[in-house]
Amino acid sequence: MISEKMTQLGKKRSVIREIFEYGNLRRKEIGADNVFDFSLGNPSIPAPQIVTDTIKRLLETKSPMELHSYTSAQGDAGVRAAIAEYIASTFGAKSDPNLIYMTCGAAASLTITLNAIVNPTDEIILLAPFFPEYTVFAEKAGAVTRVVKCSEPDFQIDFEALERVISPKTKGIIVNSPNNPSGAVLSEDTIIKLAALLNKKSVEYGTDIYIIADEPYRELVYGGVAVPYIPNFYDNTVVCYSFSKSLSLPGERIGYIFVSPRATNCGDLYAAVCGAGRALGYVCAPSLLQYTVKEVLGKTSDISVYDKNRNLLYNALCEYGYTAVRPDGAFYLFVKSPEPDAAAFCERAKGYEILIVPGDDFGYEGYVRISYCVGTEMIEKSLDRFKKLIEEYR
Amino acid sequence: MISEKMTQLGKKRSVIREIFEYGNLRRKEIGADNVFDFSLGNPSIPAPQIVTDTIKRLLETKSPMELHSYTSAQGDAGVRAAIAEYIASTFGAKSDPNLIYMTCGAAASLTITLNAIVNPTDEIILLAPFFPEYTVFAEKAGAVTRVVKCSEPDFQIDFEALERVISPKTKGIIVNSPNNPSGAVLSEDTIIKLAALLNKKSVEYGTDIYIIADEPYRELVYGGVAVPYIPNFYDNTVVCYSFSKSLSLPGERIGYIFVSPRATNCGDLYAAVCGAGRALGYVCAPSLLQYTVKEVLGKTSDISVYDKNRNLLYNALCEYGYTAVRPDGAFYLFVKSPEPDAAAFCERAKGYEILIVPGDDFGYEGYVRISYCVGTEMIEKSLDRFKKLIEEYR
Repeated sequence: MISEKMTQLGKKRSVIREIFEYGNLRRKEIGADNVFDFSLGNPSIPAPQIVTDTIKRLLETKSPMELHSYTSAQGDAGVRAAIAEYIASTFGAKSDPNLIYMTCGAAASLTITLNAIVNPTDEIILLAPFFPEYTVFAEKAGAVTRVVKCSEPDFQIDFEALERVISPKTKGIIVNSPNNPSGAVLSEDTIIKLAALLNKKSVEYGTDIYIIADEPYRELVYGGVAVPYIPNFYDNTVVCYSFSKSLSLPGERIGYIFVSPRATNCGDLYAAVCGAGRALGYVCAPSLLQYTVKEVLGKTSDISVYDKNRNLLYNALCEYGYTAVRPDGAFYLFVKSPEPDAAAFCERAKGYEILIVPGDDFGYEGYVRISYCVGTEMIEKSLDRFKKLIEEYR
Repeated sequence: MISEKMTQLGKKRSVIREIFEYGNLRRKEIGADNVFDFSLGNPSIPAPQIVTDTIKRLLETKSPMELHSYTSAQGDAGVRAAIAEYIASTFGAKSDPNLIYMTCGAAASLTITLNAIVNPTDEIILLAPFFPEYTVFAEKAGAVTRVVKCSEPDFQIDFEALERVISPKTKGIIVNSPNNPSGAVLSEDTIIKLAALLNKKSVEYGTDIYIIADEPYRELVYGGVAVPYIPNFYDNTVVCYSFSKSLSLPGERIGYIFVSPRATNCGDLYAAVCGAGRALGYVCAPSLLQYTVKEVLGKTSDISVYDKNRNLLYNALCEYGYTAVRPDGAFYLFVKSPEPDAAAFCERAKGYEILIVPGDDFGYEGYVRISYCVGTEMIEKSLDRFKKLIEEYR
């Protein structure tokens, strides 16, 4: 009688959450030090001190009325102006405060954007591997999802496969680079090719095809790798940003949507974003956090810790004989399972108290995701176990 | 090509917002002191000092990881336990932390609940006058809305009219008491009759009919009026609460959903709430504010100011010859328009620089809403104008 679909969604835990709960059980049974839990994508580095200082300063210098009243639905005008200016100066992209919409984080950015652009039965393309909630968000918005697998070993886009899937029904494609779970960063060459293909198909079908750039990991890149800013390469782009990972504030739910001024009828597109935010119940993004992020744009947590973890884990696993995607960004290693069934491999890893997630849940079989947003010490202690684990396959 | 419905929603300003924007224009033209803007329902009293103190204390005593990490999707377990305990001890209602779901405010509480219970073409009943966004939220959830007008002069429920509208398709009824815009509080007698009618109809049709109790104004009552706690009277109740008005924190987006443990299959209903929250992109409610409200449950802003404003305005308007609904709660006066066309009356009021909102937008013609969540001084200065305004109709 109530919505069965929503009931099922509420009951069905994600595989990631199942593994994490298993970890909680094991931590109780054998002690937290003996469980090597690489299951969650929860930032392990605290928010930078400047965030705490900024919130305190705001509380001390502004009145409660200034801090806690409704902002406009799109977000405070000053906050939006600062973000537009940041986008222009950092990425050299054309921007506009009136095309910025403050959100309650990346998930809200995505659901609002999808509900803004999708008409029933429109298709949204997902590039596997992808964050599993994309399917939930897109289907709730009324879309049908089509999956295109990225190509090994570099996890760039398989353009032949992509071209086969694009149709007159294609409304958009979600691009998540740096990628969860692969850690891959799409190169400038890939983005240029993607833009060319989408432009060609848009002309061929007389449609607009949107890139939804899901960018919570934009700042989490290592070794000087560049992350192309997609609005500079493709006009019909909507950037979905979140401060959750860069500032280690995932609980606070703060991010934004940026509609490119070069998008077709960008004013209407932005209006649709505002309308969708309204209809989904997003009155405004949390005000105190809006004012806070305005003051710390461009700042990040100390991501050198992730870089250290990445090198430690990647180098060791390669040395032991594992094959992994080159981890240029985010905080995940995507490792080839030594047996075809990644879930079976994850089960075997449990024998070493190592908790990792099969790629199947991300739409990509034969791989596992290892989150390295964990304590460095835990990684160090786990290495010998990873070594023994792969030795079982010799 | 994008969603036309969302585009229209984003473009079409609410009448309230139109009037407020007109006020901004007039403030620039003739000075803020000369504009008597009663259009918005924005709390005019600051958040109590204890809120600021609590946020500061949390920042000083807890680590950023403790404060800003993801909470579970339903909300932090400790926060939910405290709210469940508060509900039990304050209202004597059966409660359960595992039936509390923390939300980004009342609008989120409503959209999540509606998406949880509604199947396409289900009907949701609205009691006019009602908050205009109800229509937007219900329709986006796939429901058809049916409107039942409350009865004059006390704005309780017209049970004959309600009974005519209830059908096998009725999935729920939104009850908002204290009411925006009428200020009326539904009496215990009314709630008892409502429960009896809904129970009778549920049996007759073999359906579950939910009361969605939208309660952001619960604590804003005056003169010792009691607001019945609906879960104590009717089993299939979902309470949608927000701290926006009671603590003057509308920008922070913090509230909760409470599924009554006495609801049919309350576990499934709660799962549907969790599923809907997930599908709409609500990952968790803002964490710092979750921990903050836990520490100040039962506290409110200094609502004696609203009470003072209420008495001042209500008594004066009655003396001048206006007729108004008895304002027991919230911070609105609902006043009978001296001419049948309330919009024309509002236009005439503009001649005195008085900005008020026609009831038409709230589904109720012939009345106007006057928000008294404003400075007392402004009310004092406006009285003579209200007097002259009604004298025009003599």
